[in-house]
Amino acid sequence: MNSPANFPTKTERLDIALRSRTLGDVAGILAEMSPGDVAYLISSSPPDYRAVLLGLLEPEQEALVVNELPDELRSAALADREPEALAEIVEQLDDDDVADILHELPDEVTGQVLAIMDEQYRQRLQKVLSFSDDVAGGLMSTDTITIRADLTLDVVLRYLRRHAEIPPNTDNLIVVNRNDRFVGLLAIATVLVSDPAVSVREMMITDQEAINADTPATEVARRFERNDWISAPVVDDAGKLLGRITIDDVVDVIREEADHSLTSLAGLAEEDTFAPVWQSAPRRAIWLGVNLATALVASSVINVFQDTIEKVVALAVLMPIVASMGGIAGTQSLTILIRAMAMGQINDRNQLWLIGRESLVGLINGLLWAVVIAVTASVWFGDPILGVIIACAMLINLVTAGFTGAGLPILLRKLRVDPALAGGVLVTTVTDVMGFLAFLGLATLFYR
Amino acid sequence: MNSPANFPTKTERLDIALRSRTLGDVAGILAEMSPGDVAYLISSSPPDYRAVLLGLLEPEQEALVVNELPDELRSAALADREPEALAEIVEQLDDDDVADILHELPDEVTGQVLAIMDEQYRQRLQKVLSFSDDVAGGLMSTDTITIRADLTLDVVLRYLRRHAEIPPNTDNLIVVNRNDRFVGLLAIATVLVSDPAVSVREMMITDQEAINADTPATEVARRFERNDWISAPVVDDAGKLLGRITIDDVVDVIREEADHSLTSLAGLAEEDTFAPVWQSAPRRAIWLGVNLATALVASSVINVFQDTIEKVVALAVLMPIVASMGGIAGTQSLTILIRAMAMGQINDRNQLWLIGRESLVGLINGLLWAVVIAVTASVWFGDPILGVIIACAMLINLVTAGFTGAGLPILLRKLRVDPALAGGVLVTTVTDVMGFLAFLGLATLFYR
Repeated sequence: MNSPANFPTKTERLDIALRSRTLGDVAGILAEMSPGDVAYLISSSPPDYRAVLLGLLEPEQEALVVNELPDELRSAALADREPEALAEIVEQLDDDDVADILHELPDEVTGQVLAIMDEQYRQRLQKVLSFSDDVAGGLMSTDTITIRADLTLDVVLRYLRRHAEIPPNTDNLIVVNRNDRFVGLLAIATVLVSDPAVSVREMMITDQEAINADTPATEVARRFERNDWISAPVVDDAGKLLGRITIDDVVDVIREEADHSLTSLAGLAEEDTFAPVWQSAPRRAIWLGVNLATALVASSVINVFQDTIEKVVALAVLMPIVASMGGIAGTQSLTILIRAMAMGQINDRNQLWLIGRESLVGLINGLLWAVVIAVTASVWFGDPILGVIIACAMLINLVTAGFTGAGLPILLRKLRVDPALAGGVLVTTVTDVMGFLAFLGLATLFYR
Repeated sequence: MNSPANFPTKTERLDIALRSRTLGDVAGILAEMSPGDVAYLISSSPPDYRAVLLGLLEPEQEALVVNELPDELRSAALADREPEALAEIVEQLDDDDVADILHELPDEVTGQVLAIMDEQYRQRLQKVLSFSDDVAGGLMSTDTITIRADLTLDVVLRYLRRHAEIPPNTDNLIVVNRNDRFVGLLAIATVLVSDPAVSVREMMITDQEAINADTPATEVARRFERNDWISAPVVDDAGKLLGRITIDDVVDVIREEADHSLTSLAGLAEEDTFAPVWQSAPRRAIWLGVNLATALVASSVINVFQDTIEKVVALAVLMPIVASMGGIAGTQSLTILIRAMAMGQINDRNQLWLIGRESLVGLINGLLWAVVIAVTASVWFGDPILGVIIACAMLINLVTAGFTGAGLPILLRKLRVDPALAGGVLVTTVTDVMGFLAFLGLATLFYR
């Protein structure tokens, strides 16, 4: 995790320059760095530094750096610019990146920026903008090279020489028919190494299906991952070519998706690591409030058993153990399910099997730790009945944890509620309530 | 999250065939699917189905499918095969994938498989095998096309036509000098579109630095992400070219890294979603045991205050709230830190700032919810003193949560302990102990 031996000494020089606050030096070093590296440096700096670093960039580099920033920082960096300045920045980017940026601006500003652009570019952009950014259409770039199947490779090669500029991440040329329908792909490596006299039709790949523009971004990512694609064509319902998606945008989707599972389980909205206090505090407050409400529910369960606790204070000492173990086991099951959902592994064929497996894991671990806690509690308080009670409660709560941890996210997804965000709080509420109820309820029966 | 409208109807046909158990049909459909899709189907099936599905594949497809399986399933699928059968499978794969597989086999078996291979291939493989699979050297393929800078593009083109096979994901040819040292990259798109008479030297890219073979895999992934690379050359300390890394292997690293943060926080080892009960239960049992130990620590804190609880039973009702809120707040801070560490954002320049920010967020949210819980508790139990006590305890615990949630992972990383795995249990232990101690301790002072 530490900086590797050979990471460009630029970073070290930059560290020194930043520390000694010689801005001229910093600007010089930044100018030599790739846009991605500068964006990384900015996003891993506290807020005060960020504006300073951005301000040191030349306009052309700034556009590329802004493009590489995480969504939230990018919006902040562009927030109060004039439409003309925005148009200048976006003109240097790929159209899928431009669409990303325009999607985040207020509609009015987007209209003003579009109005400045030339007609042809605007039309291309509007094609991408008509899709939301979480489907294939919103990820695509319209900057593609298309060819016909009846050409010879020689003609293709000559066409490419005239065309002169091949868009980045072009591994395949896209073969379309007279009506612009997708037909197949021709690897540019094939153009390089094959006999120039053969036709595109003979050499093209036809077994890579095109992606429908309405396919969810997460499904696009999974198909890229499974098939090791560098790029893939995007078509409309009629099979007409609209554009192509490249791996660099897919990597961003994968990263964001993984990030979403991780942060949602902790009740965090997508949060900038270095957001200032006044941004972070209110966002997290909501989740704490939800948790306070559920904690009060659990407390009201305890409240019912006040008399029993008064009689046997050891119950108050031991009751958090039962709840806590249930919470851990439930979160384990939930995490397994959330991860599997993110990878698209859950379907009608296997979900009941999974709920059964998780309940059974809960039962087995419940038995194991019930024995351990029974012995511990009996010895600690010199009361074997207490041991029996806590063992039963532990067993009940761990089975509940497995069942709920697996069943709830499946139910939530059916109800179209985000299982990662709602699941965490619901599962621990269930295990808290069940833990207190089982333990204190059984105790009330035994100690009457 | 649901299956998109246009996912190949193959899947639906397969569903029907699987349900009606007509294995001949299943085999027919599998033969048409890409190895990645078959691997996905297998990994999202319960254990019983997996062996059946694998058994239906033709030998050649099987090799490619096995290669696409997650590590754990792959090991299981290859576990009891003869060295000859293994050699036959790996011969069809890229050498970085072969190295991956051989890394997981027992040393003895690896030796036997290597002995079957031809001399030249074995030497290439051993170069990759000499690196562990979590550094650049272990991710690389030695299957590269290298050229000299003084050639003309025309010569390169003719060379490629003779060479005939370009390895997958080749976007650049690698330019080396007489001593095999890395000099630069030549995009194959450039070869296609440029004047054949110009030299490689004039057209090559020299601003993409090569990756040292000892660079950690996670750092490799970050550099690919930041710079949108498709492939990157790998060199030794002297700058000599060893091989190249391609984006498909980097995507796997990104996925595994994200997976690690998610599962570790829940105390799960990398676990197959559909692992049978007898595999899952023992793995999770360990974490539950650790949690039981820490829960007993928290209980022993409560135990100290038995007399106070006996006097005011309302304390037992309310005490889980303070602990629970601390646990949530601490997990939020911890998750932010774990995610930032995975993205390589944490360094000496910003870690103190982050600990400060998290503590301050804890303070602000502590104040907010302290007021709410104070009013609630006072009204519920008709005792304003109880309100004051729980408010103070809540404030103390949320500041502790922010400070510990940010500080502990930084400390753990310094001690070279995995912050994601150890962090979760330690942070909640601290917030549980502090929650009970602050609340019951203050109560003991007030209710003397």
